[in-house]
Amino acid sequence: MTSNVVASPPAPDVPALSVDAARLLGRIEKFASIGRNAAGGIEREGFSDADREARAELIREAEAAGLAVGVDAAGNILIRRPEGTACTERPTLLIGSHLDTVVNGGRLDGTYGVLAALEVLQTVLESGVEPAHEPVAVAFANEEGARFPQPFWGSKVLVGRLAELPEEPLAHDGTPLRDALARVGGDLDALGTAVWPQGSVAAYLELHVEQGPVLESSGDSIGVVTGITGRTVLTVVVRGEAGHAGTTPMEMRRDPLAAAARILLAVEGLAQEQQLCRVATVGRLDIRPNSPNTIAEEVQLTVDLRDGNPVRLELAEQAVRNLVATVAQERRLEIDVEVGTRTEPAQADRTLRDAIADSAVELGHRYQLLPSGAGHDAQIVAEIAPMGMIFVPSIGGVSHVPEEDTKSGDLVAGADVLLRTALRL
Amino acid sequence: MTSNVVASPPAPDVPALSVDAARLLGRIEKFASIGRNAAGGIEREGFSDADREARAELIREAEAAGLAVGVDAAGNILIRRPEGTACTERPTLLIGSHLDTVVNGGRLDGTYGVLAALEVLQTVLESGVEPAHEPVAVAFANEEGARFPQPFWGSKVLVGRLAELPEEPLAHDGTPLRDALARVGGDLDALGTAVWPQGSVAAYLELHVEQGPVLESSGDSIGVVTGITGRTVLTVVVRGEAGHAGTTPMEMRRDPLAAAARILLAVEGLAQEQQLCRVATVGRLDIRPNSPNTIAEEVQLTVDLRDGNPVRLELAEQAVRNLVATVAQERRLEIDVEVGTRTEPAQADRTLRDAIADSAVELGHRYQLLPSGAGHDAQIVAEIAPMGMIFVPSIGGVSHVPEEDTKSGDLVAGADVLLRTALRL
Repeated sequence: MTSNVVASPPAPDVPALSVDAARLLGRIEKFASIGRNAAGGIEREGFSDADREARAELIREAEAAGLAVGVDAAGNILIRRPEGTACTERPTLLIGSHLDTVVNGGRLDGTYGVLAALEVLQTVLESGVEPAHEPVAVAFANEEGARFPQPFWGSKVLVGRLAELPEEPLAHDGTPLRDALARVGGDLDALGTAVWPQGSVAAYLELHVEQGPVLESSGDSIGVVTGITGRTVLTVVVRGEAGHAGTTPMEMRRDPLAAAARILLAVEGLAQEQQLCRVATVGRLDIRPNSPNTIAEEVQLTVDLRDGNPVRLELAEQAVRNLVATVAQERRLEIDVEVGTRTEPAQADRTLRDAIADSAVELGHRYQLLPSGAGHDAQIVAEIAPMGMIFVPSIGGVSHVPEEDTKSGDLVAGADVLLRTALRL
Repeated sequence: MTSNVVASPPAPDVPALSVDAARLLGRIEKFASIGRNAAGGIEREGFSDADREARAELIREAEAAGLAVGVDAAGNILIRRPEGTACTERPTLLIGSHLDTVVNGGRLDGTYGVLAALEVLQTVLESGVEPAHEPVAVAFANEEGARFPQPFWGSKVLVGRLAELPEEPLAHDGTPLRDALARVGGDLDALGTAVWPQGSVAAYLELHVEQGPVLESSGDSIGVVTGITGRTVLTVVVRGEAGHAGTTPMEMRRDPLAAAARILLAVEGLAQEQQLCRVATVGRLDIRPNSPNTIAEEVQLTVDLRDGNPVRLELAEQAVRNLVATVAQERRLEIDVEVGTRTEPAQADRTLRDAIADSAVELGHRYQLLPSGAGHDAQIVAEIAPMGMIFVPSIGGVSHVPEEDTKSGDLVAGADVLLRTALRL
């Protein structure tokens, strides 16, 4: 992750277009008012009223710009250049992200990527430039899965992963997705019509805020994503023996909390000292009974392992399992390991990475290569198409909170790099 | 803590009396029905309706046995031999414990010690034996402090620690102690009349279940308590920086939960490997936000240190403070240490210890020396009188739970050792 300073002059064969910065920032501002709560957070869970409002606004803006808008059976919004300008013979460049948010989320997250994709199409349309790839903007439905717990809904349908979706998906409160989907123009019984076959997309690009502290810390405006991290979440359940903190001698204890502490430190060491995987985190620990005067009886902890390399991820998981077995034996405890989530890593396409990096340099922006530690629709689309992602810095490294923000200059820089990358393919 | 097998024959100068085992066990059974909840636990918080019922039952039993009963201003029940048999010229041997329980507590705890004290007085009275010390049984009011959070209420008043009691003590729900106390015959405005001056008690004896696993594990029936442990409870507050578990590189983290794990293991090591204090426990850990996907922002843990030696207790506390300072520096975190509770240890009187041990041996019971890891009225009374405590095994090492129990044979053995100790002084 080294920084790269501006070097080459603009490549002569790429049209020198720029996005309309004021228009882009204005739209971001407008969308930040849709679903905003009292705390300044955005509550626009997929298929909620606020989400529908944002979707309608996107469609209005695109149509006002002279673009053609469609909604597929999954509820994905697809924006194309109008007939006569769009060329269906050209390979498709899909560009997008999502409009839905987590509960009390931020204003940028997926919305920034969708509005930047719209900006790319509008700029290309207005310029009269004919790019080698036909750009199509997409707003994927329900990426977060905040209300309907089917995250990556829209992108999973688009790549044809229908088999792993529930037949009648429900919201946390039992509301059927079927009706909510119909209200945005989708059709649960016709999801097959929304599937794009392998090879139908020449490339997928997604622009996103980093959601971490790396770019802010290095001072680079652009992050070129090397890949989206794989993730394995394990739940470790440690069962010991409760006891009175005053009357149980040390040598007679079977303390699951002390065992959990040992596991926790070793998990940190897996990533930090041993560098077996990129990051390893214990963020949650549940203790029973959790009383100052009582040796705990049972402790559960979640171990979150992430790496871009599936082999390293597997090795790290095996290391946790070995460690747990050792601790169980040493401390005469029963320890179970359950697998919560397993997400495969997705590599960014090398050509797209280079195109993004070159575009950044040509536009005078410092960039650095970095992995995406969070999940994105891009990791799903990567199954049917080469994928590239562009990051811009997150102020304070935070996201999915009301404070989520990025400097205006960086927002514009990211959109310009996206546009230039689209034009240079 | 070595076991001592029966050796000497009965000392010829101690009257060979035994408690009435059936009567003692019958009373224990009867009291176990007062305040019993659906789960089989006892709910007899100090000054509650159930506590008043148990107090009335004790008074009835004592009076029926021909003993004289009084209630002091603090609500302590004092049982003496009747005028004509009691000799006020003799030094006073106070014997007792408490009738109140924690919420959903066990049947034995303090009740066993009170009923055994009653049994001692009744047996002595019925036998016509004239002991060298005049036995007085006491049921201390509100030892647990479960409803009125003034634990050791009765014993604190008895030793004159009035200054540290609130002027108008209240229950957790705001009920004034004044009225509750008046209903059992006490008087909040006359607490001074319940104070026993230094030197007025020649010795205090308390029989109790161990509340730990030591005696059950060794197979000894009798524990001779060396002292009641001192206790220091520290709250350690670790403040770090929240972050996304996927996007925050290891080297940029300031993870308070990993720091807490390090402290937790070192605290265990203080008692286990370094043996700086007898026991050291972290039983409670509160994590914010406690989410699998988020590096914690703040963690609080309680460190419970116990030892019979006040110097060792202080050294252990200092070791925790040094450790915390090191961890704070190494991990660039802010860590505060707050003192929750500090209880001074109380030594058992050497002569009383020997008298208990000799009595156990003479009655054919194996004993072992051990510290009391939990608190008892005895540690308060120790301020004005030599104190001795007798333990009997706790099945499974548990107490303050519905499952709290002790074998009948051990209950009788403990009462017999108490009786013989009272007679041999």
